[in-house]
Amino acid sequence: MSAKTTKDSKWIVTEEGTDAKTIRQNETLFALSNGHIGTRGSLEEAERTKEYSHSEATLVNAYYDSEPIQYGEWAYGYAKEHQTVIPVPNGKKLAIRLENDLFDLTTGKTTNHKRQLDLKKGLLTRSFTWENTQGHKLDVKIERFVSYDYPELLAQNITLTPQDDGCDLQMVANLDDLKELGNITEEESNDPRIKAHKERRFQSKRLEDFDNQLLHIETNNTHLHLIVGEKNQLSDPSVQSHFEDGAESWKLETKKGDTIQLERLIAYSNIFHEESKIEDKAQRLTTILNEASAIGFKGLKEKHIAHMEEFWELSDIEIVGDDELQVGLRFNLFHLYQAAGRDGKRNMSAKGLSGEGYEGHYFWDTEMYMLPFFLYTQPKIAKHLLNYRYTILEEARNRAREMAVDNGALFAWRTINGKEASPYYPAGTAQIHINGDIAHAVHTYVKATGDKRFGMKEGLEILVETARFYAGWGHFDEKRKGAFVLNDVTGPDEYTAIVNNNYYTNLMAKHNFKYAAEMVEAVLESNDEDGLGVLKRIGYDKAELENWKKAADKMFLPYDDEQQLTMQDDSFFHKEVWDIENTPKENFPLLLHYHPLTIYRYQVNKQADTVLAQFLFPDEFSQEQKARDYDYYESVTTHDSSLSRSVFGMMASDLGQMEKAYNYFMDTALMDITDLQSNTRDGVHAANMGGTWMSMVNGFGGMRLVEDRLHFRPRLPKDWTCVTFKVQFRHRLIKVSISKDDTEYTLIKGEPLVIRHFDEEKHLK
Amino acid sequence: MSAKTTKDSKWIVTEEGTDAKTIRQNETLFALSNGHIGTRGSLEEAERTKEYSHSEATLVNAYYDSEPIQYGEWAYGYAKEHQTVIPVPNGKKLAIRLENDLFDLTTGKTTNHKRQLDLKKGLLTRSFTWENTQGHKLDVKIERFVSYDYPELLAQNITLTPQDDGCDLQMVANLDDLKELGNITEEESNDPRIKAHKERRFQSKRLEDFDNQLLHIETNNTHLHLIVGEKNQLSDPSVQSHFEDGAESWKLETKKGDTIQLERLIAYSNIFHEESKIEDKAQRLTTILNEASAIGFKGLKEKHIAHMEEFWELSDIEIVGDDELQVGLRFNLFHLYQAAGRDGKRNMSAKGLSGEGYEGHYFWDTEMYMLPFFLYTQPKIAKHLLNYRYTILEEARNRAREMAVDNGALFAWRTINGKEASPYYPAGTAQIHINGDIAHAVHTYVKATGDKRFGMKEGLEILVETARFYAGWGHFDEKRKGAFVLNDVTGPDEYTAIVNNNYYTNLMAKHNFKYAAEMVEAVLESNDEDGLGVLKRIGYDKAELENWKKAADKMFLPYDDEQQLTMQDDSFFHKEVWDIENTPKENFPLLLHYHPLTIYRYQVNKQADTVLAQFLFPDEFSQEQKARDYDYYESVTTHDSSLSRSVFGMMASDLGQMEKAYNYFMDTALMDITDLQSNTRDGVHAANMGGTWMSMVNGFGGMRLVEDRLHFRPRLPKDWTCVTFKVQFRHRLIKVSISKDDTEYTLIKGEPLVIRHFDEEKHLK
Repeated sequence: MSAKTTKDSKWIVTEEGTDAKTIRQNETLFALSNGHIGTRGSLEEAERTKEYSHSEATLVNAYYDSEPIQYGEWAYGYAKEHQTVIPVPNGKKLAIRLENDLFDLTTGKTTNHKRQLDLKKGLLTRSFTWENTQGHKLDVKIERFVSYDYPELLAQNITLTPQDDGCDLQMVANLDDLKELGNITEEESNDPRIKAHKERRFQSKRLEDFDNQLLHIETNNTHLHLIVGEKNQLSDPSVQSHFEDGAESWKLETKKGDTIQLERLIAYSNIFHEESKIEDKAQRLTTILNEASAIGFKGLKEKHIAHMEEFWELSDIEIVGDDELQVGLRFNLFHLYQAAGRDGKRNMSAKGLSGEGYEGHYFWDTEMYMLPFFLYTQPKIAKHLLNYRYTILEEARNRAREMAVDNGALFAWRTINGKEASPYYPAGTAQIHINGDIAHAVHTYVKATGDKRFGMKEGLEILVETARFYAGWGHFDEKRKGAFVLNDVTGPDEYTAIVNNNYYTNLMAKHNFKYAAEMVEAVLESNDEDGLGVLKRIGYDKAELENWKKAADKMFLPYDDEQQLTMQDDSFFHKEVWDIENTPKENFPLLLHYHPLTIYRYQVNKQADTVLAQFLFPDEFSQEQKARDYDYYESVTTHDSSLSRSVFGMMASDLGQMEKAYNYFMDTALMDITDLQSNTRDGVHAANMGGTWMSMVNGFGGMRLVEDRLHFRPRLPKDWTCVTFKVQFRHRLIKVSISKDDTEYTLIKGEPLVIRHFDEEKHLK
Repeated sequence: MSAKTTKDSKWIVTEEGTDAKTIRQNETLFALSNGHIGTRGSLEEAERTKEYSHSEATLVNAYYDSEPIQYGEWAYGYAKEHQTVIPVPNGKKLAIRLENDLFDLTTGKTTNHKRQLDLKKGLLTRSFTWENTQGHKLDVKIERFVSYDYPELLAQNITLTPQDDGCDLQMVANLDDLKELGNITEEESNDPRIKAHKERRFQSKRLEDFDNQLLHIETNNTHLHLIVGEKNQLSDPSVQSHFEDGAESWKLETKKGDTIQLERLIAYSNIFHEESKIEDKAQRLTTILNEASAIGFKGLKEKHIAHMEEFWELSDIEIVGDDELQVGLRFNLFHLYQAAGRDGKRNMSAKGLSGEGYEGHYFWDTEMYMLPFFLYTQPKIAKHLLNYRYTILEEARNRAREMAVDNGALFAWRTINGKEASPYYPAGTAQIHINGDIAHAVHTYVKATGDKRFGMKEGLEILVETARFYAGWGHFDEKRKGAFVLNDVTGPDEYTAIVNNNYYTNLMAKHNFKYAAEMVEAVLESNDEDGLGVLKRIGYDKAELENWKKAADKMFLPYDDEQQLTMQDDSFFHKEVWDIENTPKENFPLLLHYHPLTIYRYQVNKQADTVLAQFLFPDEFSQEQKARDYDYYESVTTHDSSLSRSVFGMMASDLGQMEKAYNYFMDTALMDITDLQSNTRDGVHAANMGGTWMSMVNGFGGMRLVEDRLHFRPRLPKDWTCVTFKVQFRHRLIKVSISKDDTEYTLIKGEPLVIRHFDEEKHLK
């Protein structure tokens, strides 16, 4: 049996046949989620065979357990606990028995096995014909989706068509049967990019008082509660289901050509902390299940498809001239959209909800890679994501104190609950650029949406506290003519660590100072009540404001005069250049094959660092400077990080190197579908997916936010005839159609506004 | 009950009374060892009461178990396993029962409790009167020593004098009763300086076929074998001992005024790897026990005292003018001497064999702090210590390969078996100065002893392989006019880490290159057969030799022209100065109260770094330069490391700042007796003890090895009238007596030689 993932229309990702080698990757590709729950594209027969069941996981965003981080040698201020999003009961699991055989891909014979992810509809379908060991046949079709209308809901529709009469047919659903929760090799467990857990990390209890099959679960150490329930309905009302040991089963005798349909609704409540609320929450979930059940699978599916249509209406990007790329691009937008938390309390993890990689942690990936997509196509979700940072601001303040900075806040490098969860501080806590990343996102959000209330409240507080931290961490260095320096940090490029004056970090801090100062001044000038309230609460001091301005003004930005190159940090050019060309292919990514001290000792980049800084602030550098830096840093970059290529691609667009931009973009857009990083099995590369959107809009579309205006400098790769996307900007919806010779800007919704196309102002009405 | 540790003669350390607060410290102070076995000064009643039994440990040098190091996040090349010297059966343990009471300090009443460590004799005595709960009294006297003549042997002599008639008196000895093997609080377990283990980490089995009570033990993971045995003899031959459950016991009825004496010999075999050798080893240990038993406790003690006399004859330092200091100084020499491995396969751990701190690991402490004492007073032991490094050279080669350096060897920062055991590489593997430290010790050993054979064989190989590693790690930096640089290293001062061009490291590497080049050239010039053999085996290449010379010549040594100060590393002066004065006292040592990134961001030193470099190569700097650097670095040093003060003291002597030298010396010499670092409980600070000897000889004596000659520049603190020490140098024994006005050099043994006293040559005959 072999499988092929094809993209046979502009909307559908197809797997034909089955292949144990790609099944883990495809579990990721076919993952479905809605920001609350996520479920990997695993087979319904689950762990029936080792060969085809690799890493099932159904996850609830931020439903995590903790355990102490073990250090060979402890030091003060180290992150104390792992936070690990853990698999919850696998509701989509279903056992099908025909006579004496339980169905799986190695029992009897399965033909015409096909799975399709319909991106347009947000629907995963599976179909096949099974011939059991006695030669009895059964046609099977299964539909699955995760609802946006009911965030608690995973819906499944199983259609069985027997081809023989008189066989015993049985289906069994069992929420609490959790024999396997992941399956990683020892080698993989050493990979810092994977952190999976084999053990079941919650206690579960059937709630007997409820009609539906409800289960209460509670994590072992964090004591987070969740209710999981299911409601199943067989098409033939004459067949009574049977309950035993928590399993629901249906038995019937086959009639050739008959269609047996089982509709399953599996629901995961929201997370709660209080044991006393179990009954309330169970009641609420019952209500949802009953309501959804009344609508029925078909009705729910229609609502779901309508929701998806709305999404695509706002967020689609059309490419004319490359169908394979078109579906690949949509695949990325689909996964981006479905992974983001939507309640202002949860964020979007590095793998979305598509796998257990990175333990479900939130990183800078959100602000710097994923947020732009939401900001310009789904600004409400963007606000929810930023609001999450506000909810953990108090933890960030605590962290700053632990780091002996008396004032301000330092956001955790990786976290769910706001506390630092990175066990390796040189590539964790040392990445203090996270503060500047979040500040930049806040600033951009306020500018792009015009959401002044957020700016004057949550935004203001975040900007001030992040700036304060930088002021406390750095100092004016007399040995550098009083320049403001930030020592002992790690930039985005984790192939150097604990350096002085990382260019990216310093530039982000400089802007953080500026954003904070501007926002405080805006409050003072406008006498905004909300803003004044915040300043009163968190303190304000004119000297502090002046200090930020001075620090921004005197920020040290390392530059090599001789080579006329921007320096990644103070010492980067004092290191030897890594011989990338002669490094054996199997030794990439370097981090898995060389000691940190080996890697740190060379000029070699895991990802864009200086180039990312220049991409974010393109107008602060001449084209010549950007081109020189680009060439240099590209030559020392391995792209071992999935966050690298999109940035190099966009900067290539900026520099007019369209062939290069195209090549990087293809790698970016198809990264997960082609398993470019060889670890798609652990979950999608959500940041890179955001990078895909940015590559289209900011790269080829050349879109930038300059002061209060959108600027465009569109440039298409040579094989594309037309690209169309939409952006939301300050309550307007703008459609941009770029073709070879012309770009058309249409104001679909909202008040007239002025944009800039290259050097020309355009008035959109 | 209270205890006071007094130094009531020039040779004796006394504890009067008992005090639970100081008992752990005194367990360390009263530890006895001989380089093979070590036993803490714990009470014979062992874990009878929580209050007075804190951290008994009997240790065998290099008898260790391993377990995987747990990392929150793994990376390539990390140290894989802890190596932990583990407590072996506590042979000195003895239970004394009088009627119904088992003796301990909280049962009944103990009076006149006194312990004395006689440094001259190497003997620990304990005496007290015990009144049991029924009012029956017993005088108890216990002597204990660890033999140099029989390295396997711990000898104990228990004398009981009942003051009542007709009571039941019982004594019980039980080697295998290991209820408690350490007792640390959770807080302590977080202290990187302590790594203790509560669990028993070996399997034990009685060897029934042997006369004596023999026990075979085998570590759980390293499978190291050891035979432990005892032979006990009661003075009254009419009392038969009784064996049960592995315990030997004696029962008798007291007669007032009678003296009951129990002589106990406890033996620990050498470590072996082969299970097949158990019987041989057991037989050998039986022979030793029988032989020793025939001599008897008194005879063994006499031999032991004679050995100690020989030791003191060669190694004592006499101070006239300060008795308390005199005993403190001898205390240090005593502990130094007793801790060193003497078989060329084992070394001397940072705590000697006096406690479980630092897991019994060997560090650079040996070469840079402890070795000089042995080199000039016990050169045979010095050779054994260096030979240990030769035995782990192959592991060091492997480590260099792991660190992606193709040629040469990198010694482990902390180890027993040669493999790196430091779980925190920034203050572990990054300390590549260990190579230069060992090379410096080899070079000095050969120069000071004239042991050319070692130089042409083991020495040559070590020098070449260490130099090769530096050549591979560093490079000629075009940005620094082709200077040779060593990036991403950590110097001795662990309050900065992963820096470029640490001054100390670069200077040691420079000399390592020179030593290697000189030694290779000496081989080539002399056509020494041994040397040529080594070069043939490990390869030799003229270009390599030239490269070392060039690297030495062009070694980058950071210097600040403006301030005219030597720079600890490239970026040290770009950091803010830590406000030591206003740091709360309870926040020292800083490493326990601040995150590494906080500490690294400031100019603050844990210990001498640049000053140590200048102490080692005093003639390479002007007095003015040394004075400037001294003042500066002293002002930023916390002395949180016990390795710091002795160096600052010696350099003060060099600079003629005698009051400062005296003050540092007093802290150095009395560090453990006064518990200056608050962690003497975990074991003595052996390196500091070496620093004490160096302070006397190199500091106040001003002794240096310059080319092939000893130079002296004696300078005494004002209160001392006379200091006398002896040094061995190239088969001579020289006595140096320094008084206020005069220094007398006497050649006690050996051929005439020329030394230098200040600028004057002296011919000793």
